[in-house]
Amino acid sequence: MRLAVIGAGAVGRSVVELAGEHGHEVVAVADSSSAVVADGANGPDGRTPGVDPDAVVARKAERGIVGDGDPEDALAADYDVLVEATPTTLGDADPGFSHVTRALERDRHAVLANKGPVAERFGDLRAAVADSAGEIRFEATVGGAIPAVSTVEDIEPGHVTAVRGVLNGTANFILTRMAAEGLDYDHVLAEAQDLGVAEADPSFDVDGTDAALKCVILANVLSFGAVDDPADAREFTLDDADVEGIRDVPGSTLRLAAEDGRTVRLIGEATGETVRVAPRLVPENGTLAVSGTQNIVQIETTHAGRLNISGRGAGGPETASAVLGDVGRLK
Amino acid sequence: MRLAVIGAGAVGRSVVELAGEHGHEVVAVADSSSAVVADGANGPDGRTPGVDPDAVVARKAERGIVGDGDPEDALAADYDVLVEATPTTLGDADPGFSHVTRALERDRHAVLANKGPVAERFGDLRAAVADSAGEIRFEATVGGAIPAVSTVEDIEPGHVTAVRGVLNGTANFILTRMAAEGLDYDHVLAEAQDLGVAEADPSFDVDGTDAALKCVILANVLSFGAVDDPADAREFTLDDADVEGIRDVPGSTLRLAAEDGRTVRLIGEATGETVRVAPRLVPENGTLAVSGTQNIVQIETTHAGRLNISGRGAGGPETASAVLGDVGRLK
Repeated sequence: MRLAVIGAGAVGRSVVELAGEHGHEVVAVADSSSAVVADGANGPDGRTPGVDPDAVVARKAERGIVGDGDPEDALAADYDVLVEATPTTLGDADPGFSHVTRALERDRHAVLANKGPVAERFGDLRAAVADSAGEIRFEATVGGAIPAVSTVEDIEPGHVTAVRGVLNGTANFILTRMAAEGLDYDHVLAEAQDLGVAEADPSFDVDGTDAALKCVILANVLSFGAVDDPADAREFTLDDADVEGIRDVPGSTLRLAAEDGRTVRLIGEATGETVRVAPRLVPENGTLAVSGTQNIVQIETTHAGRLNISGRGAGGPETASAVLGDVGRLK
Repeated sequence: MRLAVIGAGAVGRSVVELAGEHGHEVVAVADSSSAVVADGANGPDGRTPGVDPDAVVARKAERGIVGDGDPEDALAADYDVLVEATPTTLGDADPGFSHVTRALERDRHAVLANKGPVAERFGDLRAAVADSAGEIRFEATVGGAIPAVSTVEDIEPGHVTAVRGVLNGTANFILTRMAAEGLDYDHVLAEAQDLGVAEADPSFDVDGTDAALKCVILANVLSFGAVDDPADAREFTLDDADVEGIRDVPGSTLRLAAEDGRTVRLIGEATGETVRVAPRLVPENGTLAVSGTQNIVQIETTHAGRLNISGRGAGGPETASAVLGDVGRLK
């Protein structure tokens, strides 16, 4: 497949670098201000040869741009799949939402790593897909390398009663370190920022917003998957989520919990009816008590009991792996 | 899709009962001596109406047969997907292998819960698929409800370096109980047999053969998935597996292990080069130390670190869930 990669952050760059290993070629790359589009001349097999992945990544590192073109050139290029990897935005979820709908209007596919459109405009996306020959997939929006969405899809959402888990590695790292070292939140946050595990402004992660967006996406999958007519489905957005982050978890709570063989994790849960994110007590050796930046997704099914999937929830190569897995699943 | 379900044990019966919930109809069912094929008259939408699932299951329970027809009637019926759920056989893997190749020769699909053909005749199956418009899928052969095969498939086998795990619930139950109660193997085996967790002849499970077959299947997936030309792939069979079961694990080993925070689990591991099953020491609160009849599959990837998937590895509804997930994934 020919990919147009929109977004040249860690995920976009990893998709550019790894696409070839999966048998795909990148024909266009765009960041917020620039683009590169592969030479229009037909390659030996009659197809447009792709961009040079190493050159694009190097150019971005050295000059801060991916090419001399305009982002519009990438959006208008001749591609099979648009990979939406621009930063998550809320509300109207633009520009990502418009990138996706434009691809669908052109009867192309879109694979998203950007949570915004899937969390905030799920109904509109579904409508755009219904009018298109293209499909959308969004495994990379929930749990990085963990195949959460495709597993729910295979079990069939009507047979899944809930999905819960640890969905934000930054918050989990902080809680793990607080418990392990008996340190308080501010101290561990600073450590996490030094390590690059937390951002300078960590609120998206520590306030539970990132975990909540992922749970909203899962709730939409469960809700729309359980009905035949999308008009009957309840659509979720971030506003529907009941969210509490980890800023107010004192070190004393963790010490008390440990005396009882428990610890605290930021747990998100989605059903077809509710979305909640909050710190919760869990058994310290139990399944939900993953450590460090690990994520875990726990899927409750009607016929197959509980499935637990844990792994790396974030990172360029990990998320790119999910994007390229989705490209492979397009029909 | 119209399903012909061959095999009316726990898995076959569950597929018959659950197919309707997944939007499929069962048009034929066969056990070793009988069959029922849906009325040939066209239903209101022009399609052959399916068999009555409850009636078929009840007939099997009361009379030991599924219908008044001959198994040949089911194999010759007009179906889209043949579900192969007859007991695993080794070597030539017949009759299961022939059921599958006959479906492929008719350009139909086959979904297997029967491990025999996939473990013992993988190369021959691949050749039969190459000459057919039909596909085969076999998620249900490894880890029951755990999406092991489809996860490896999505990551792409060339990007998976190893798959390991606890793949036999009977052996795991026995080891869990030995460790928890300080009892010896014979005592716990008897308990497992009373509970129906172990068979009267438990050797297939406790000698590691079942786990080994699952690992052989995974090794075949990794091996064939890593090359472009099947002729270049190494084919694995049960004979290639290095297998040690749990009969010789004494209670004393478990007690000694516990003093060091460890326990013993029957671990199977497959790479593109080797297959090994043996009891191994693992941290008692670690990921591989699943309890009771649970299974866990651990996938080592090149770009996405390690994924762990745990859940129910066996059971009628659980395995049927995997079969019906596969039907949904057919293109």
